[in-house]
This record gives sequence, C-alpha cells and structure tokens, in this order.
Amino acid sequence: MASPAPQPQSLHDLLHSLRLPDDRAALRDSVIPSILQCISAIATALQSAHHVSLAGTANAFGDDQLNVDVIAENLVRAALAKCPSVRTASSEEDPTEQPVHSDSKSTPSSSERYTVAFDPLDGSSIIAPNWTVGTILGIWDGESALHQSPATKQVAAILGVYGPRTTAIVALRVPGTEPACFEVGLTGENITVICPRVHLPDSPPKTRYFAPANLRAAAEDERYMDLVAHYIANKYTLRYSGGLVPDVVHALVKGHGVYLSPVTGTSKAKLRRLYELCPLALVVECAGGRAVDPVDGRDILERPAGDCDERGGLVCGTAGEVEFAMSMLLRLDN
Amino acid sequence: MASPAPQPQSLHDLLHSLRLPDDRAALRDSVIPSILQCISAIATALQSAHHVSLAGTANAFGDDQLNVDVIAENLVRAALAKCPSVRTASSEEDPTEQPVHSDSKSTPSSSERYTVAFDPLDGSSIIAPNWTVGTILGIWDGESALHQSPATKQVAAILGVYGPRTTAIVALRVPGTEPACFEVGLTGENITVICPRVHLPDSPPKTRYFAPANLRAAAEDERYMDLVAHYIANKYTLRYSGGLVPDVVHALVKGHGVYLSPVTGTSKAKLRRLYELCPLALVVECAGGRAVDPVDGRDILERPAGDCDERGGLVCGTAGEVEFAMSMLLRLDN
Repeated sequence: MASPAPQPQSLHDLLHSLRLPDDRAALRDSVIPSILQCISAIATALQSAHHVSLAGTANAFGDDQLNVDVIAENLVRAALAKCPSVRTASSEEDPTEQPVHSDSKSTPSSSERYTVAFDPLDGSSIIAPNWTVGTILGIWDGESALHQSPATKQVAAILGVYGPRTTAIVALRVPGTEPACFEVGLTGENITVICPRVHLPDSPPKTRYFAPANLRAAAEDERYMDLVAHYIANKYTLRYSGGLVPDVVHALVKGHGVYLSPVTGTSKAKLRRLYELCPLALVVECAGGRAVDPVDGRDILERPAGDCDERGGLVCGTAGEVEFAMSMLLRLDN
Repeated sequence: MASPAPQPQSLHDLLHSLRLPDDRAALRDSVIPSILQCISAIATALQSAHHVSLAGTANAFGDDQLNVDVIAENLVRAALAKCPSVRTASSEEDPTEQPVHSDSKSTPSSSERYTVAFDPLDGSSIIAPNWTVGTILGIWDGESALHQSPATKQVAAILGVYGPRTTAIVALRVPGTEPACFEVGLTGENITVICPRVHLPDSPPKTRYFAPANLRAAAEDERYMDLVAHYIANKYTLRYSGGLVPDVVHALVKGHGVYLSPVTGTSKAKLRRLYELCPLALVVECAGGRAVDPVDGRDILERPAGDCDERGGLVCGTAGEVEFAMSMLLRLDN
C-alpha cells in the first residue's frame, strides 16, 4: 500500500536512509542510479516507437517488434558498462552470462562485484495495443547468478514500468540490513520518490484483486477453475493485463493482490527463473508478500537457477492470499 | 486487425482520402487535428504527474487524483475553444451541455456546427499503478447531443490512449461517405499514421480474446458465469485492464476481441451513454464490429441519450462474438 511520504524525499536521501554497509557504496551510488536512468532512456525510446504496432498484425512477430527489444537490451547493456562493479550480465534476449567489461583495466575500485540478470522489455504481446509494459532486473552478489542461493545472493531487484508515466519499483535485501521496497517516478533526468515504503499488508483490504495468468489452464485443471470461481463468488476485482510487471506492480501499488501463473499438464511453465521469477519474488518479499512455485508451494527464492533458460510457474502477492491459493492448487483430490 | 500501410501516409492525406463532403472541412481540418494535438498535450501532462499515485492509497479519492482529471478536462476545453465549429460541449467532469464560445463574435464561417461529449480521463482506478488510460470523445452534428439519433448524428469519435506511447483511434461516419477507422501515433507535435484501416474481421482469428468487466456480477448471474466458463473452456485469452479505452483498443489492434460489461440485479449499469457508450460504439462499428446493450441486445447507437448522466451496460467487439455472447446473456432459463 502506498504510504504518502511526510516530506518529498530525494532518491539520494532515501538510499542513504537505508543504512547500507560501506561496502555497498557502488550498489547504492552507481548501480541503482544508473539502472534508473536507463529505464528513463528506454521510456523515451518507446515513446516514439510507433511502428511497433505492426507486430500486432496477424502475421506474428515482425522485425519492428524485435527492434524495440533490441533497443531496450542495448540501453541496459550500455548502462551496466558504466558501472565498474557490474562484472557479469545476461538477459532474456541474450541468455548467456558474459563479462560486462572486456578490458582488464576496468577493475572495480572496491570489493563490490555484481551480476545483473534482466529482461529488457517484458510484455511483447501487449506492446502493439499500447498497454503498459516493463523491464525486470535482478542484481546478484558475485560473478554469476547461476547455482547461487537466490534468497541470499540476489541483493536487489528493479522493475521499470512504462505507462502514461515512467515509474520503477526498487527492492533491496542486502545481508545485515532491513529489506526495503520503494517506488520512484522518472521524468527525463529527474527521479521523484513516489512511495518510500511499498507494502503488501496482511490486514483486510478495502478491495481484493486477482490476476489469473494462463487462464486457459483452468480448462484442464479443476483446482485452478475452482480457485477462479472462488474469487468471482467472493467478489474479488479482476485486473489482468497479461504483462508480468504491470500485473505485479498493480498489487504493490494497490496494497493487495494475488497473481497466479500455475503449471498444468499441457500448459508448461513459461516464466524464466533468472529474468522474471527471481527479481519479481525479491520485490514481492521485500514488500512483505510471498512468491511461491505453484508446483510445490516452495518459495521461489529457495531454488537456485541451474541454467539461464530455466522456467517455472508463479503464485505471488499478499501473503495470506498466496497461502490460500496454494491450499486450493495443491489440493489432493485430482 | 492492423494492416500495414504500403507507404507512410500523413494524417492530412489520410483524411483527404476519405472524400468527405465540402461542408465537412472544419471537422476534417480543424476539429479532428485540434483534438489529436490536445491528446498529445494530455499525454505530456500525465508523464510528469507522479503524485497521482497517492490516489492509490487506502483512503480513496485524493485531491491529486482530481487534479489529473481537471488538467485533462481543461486541455480538452481549451482545444475545443479553438474550433469555431464546435458550438456545445459537455463532459463526464461537467455533465451539462454548455456553449463553447461565450461571445457571439465567434460565429462559425461555415454551416458546420458540432457538439462534443467527452470523458477527459477514463480509468481513474488504474492511474496509480501506471496502467494505460484514455480519453473518449464523441462529435455530434448540431448544437446538442441529447435526444438525437446517435446512429446518424454522432459523426465521429476519438479515443486517446496513454501508454508507453501515445496513440489515438479515430472513427468517422459522416452521412453519405464510407465509415472509416484508423490509428495514429502522437509524439509531441508529430502525428504518424500507424494503421489506416482498423478492422475487426469476422474471419477466424489466430487468438481469441475476452475482457469480462464487472466480473463480480457473474457471482449472481449464472448466464454470465456460464459465458466466462465457455471462454475458459474454449481457450480464449484473457486481457482485462479495467480501463474501457485500453480494453476496447486491445481488440481493435489485435483484430479480435469481445468486451463484456453486463448489468445484473445488484450490479447497476455503470457506463455513461454520452461520454463512454456512444463514442465507443461508433468506433467499434466503424471497425466492422458490433456494440450492443446487454439488457436487450439492441445496438447502443439505436438509443438516444435522454440526459447527460444516463448509464448503460455494454457488449462490444467482433460481431460474431457479440452475437454469441448475447445469445448466452439473454438466455431465458433464469
């Protein structure tokens, strides 16, 4: 739930108020600000990319569509290249971990070394109709995100949200400090703190929201169908854009919601562990919510990524809602 | 369905290619261009309106929210004031028909006289999470939109779409000319034709979409529940943002879709006839689709507005889908 700040606060002041240890100066003063400026640059590029709409034609995935993805990919790569502490990167567009700095000269001045795993432009199916889309980034300690414990090694995640405005959700969980989750607004070079504490409380909300992804799976899974019927019978409000970033951010900004992307027999896991599941899960946990694997109910962040292409399902949002949904989805009657 | 243009085409050329009669010069050369520039100005205002997010707090409709609506309202009013042929206006924010030009000097130079009925910023519930929202305008022949036949007197409608880009759908149905529906992209002062013919064909689509508004009504209306179950069983793709403009524009850009906002016992009609139903219905009809009243299946545009506050339900989109949905919703078994 967005709590209004008593005073307008700068990003600098907000980041410093989190009291990160001294050996996180590069994360705080270089990596996070660079990524936020990059999200603003992607927004500017999208604003004039009208020819992407051609991708909405019947004849599928056109080159124009690809161009927008590539523009976003290149802007993120360029932003990371400006951060000496970012050693390794991989993305949904280029899913192989590679060094960010090719020359040995750019050794970081501190001990900080990070790996960034990102999806430069999530929501390709809704770009043509001009619906809100996003960028997803996870920031990991060390030179690789593979075979690491996401719960302790993924120290930050950022979601860029491209809608009528450009906003971003930033989550930080650096060992030894309190988890933080906040929302900023980006206008050109300016960064405005919109909400210093994004929070998914477990107290009863005024309105309850649900976002059922992969709803076609309910045709073959009675438990998913029953869960959707439960939300309808209990007058939950439906909000489902089909974009992972806007769908999860909706819950974060409204202060309530459950996002469901179950896995069934013929409907395979679609979300990438490194580029989608892990960053989203960190954001939701830092806001006080839960993010679990619908197959076994385990926290998303318990399971390391074995390779860059690994996929999974997702149930996330308000903790109590996630627990209820899992009690329905893991029901043993079929 | 968006058909790529063989050549980039200017708005001027596209509008002139429609061969409107000479006595529509003000509509073509003044009213439509002015409204499109105004949509671009609203987009610019929204881009820096980060404080609207405060409206997402639990304590309801804040002043900040109101400010965005008022900014959009004022921008539309200012744009209409520049068009001598626009004699009367009313809006969702100020639902009383009033003269646009207070001084008698501004008599139009031609016989063209229009009334504009508009919703300056539709989708207030999804502004805080930064989802796509829109502006809706209907342009009517004469000095009033009340007690007129919408089918013949509403000659144009425009939807402004504020997302990662700014786009607009323009529909024209001037008596004596072919109906037209096209999509433009707006970047500052520039207007780009994205799709010269927005079309909802009745041929079988690759993907079928549904957008069930007011889904809570399905809890008390078995027919609506059965219809939703039909879409799930038949593997339709769910896309429902809760914003009327993005939801209908999704169908128009994808070339398929059905939007449902039924009316049931305890769930009253919510959409305003003058500011939402009539303009949306004209756009959908000009694209070859249908827009009907869910209560009796009559075309939305058959029924004149008796007053500015009149409300109704809506089922619209691909013609065959609308007809099927109505066969389910008007079923006689309960």
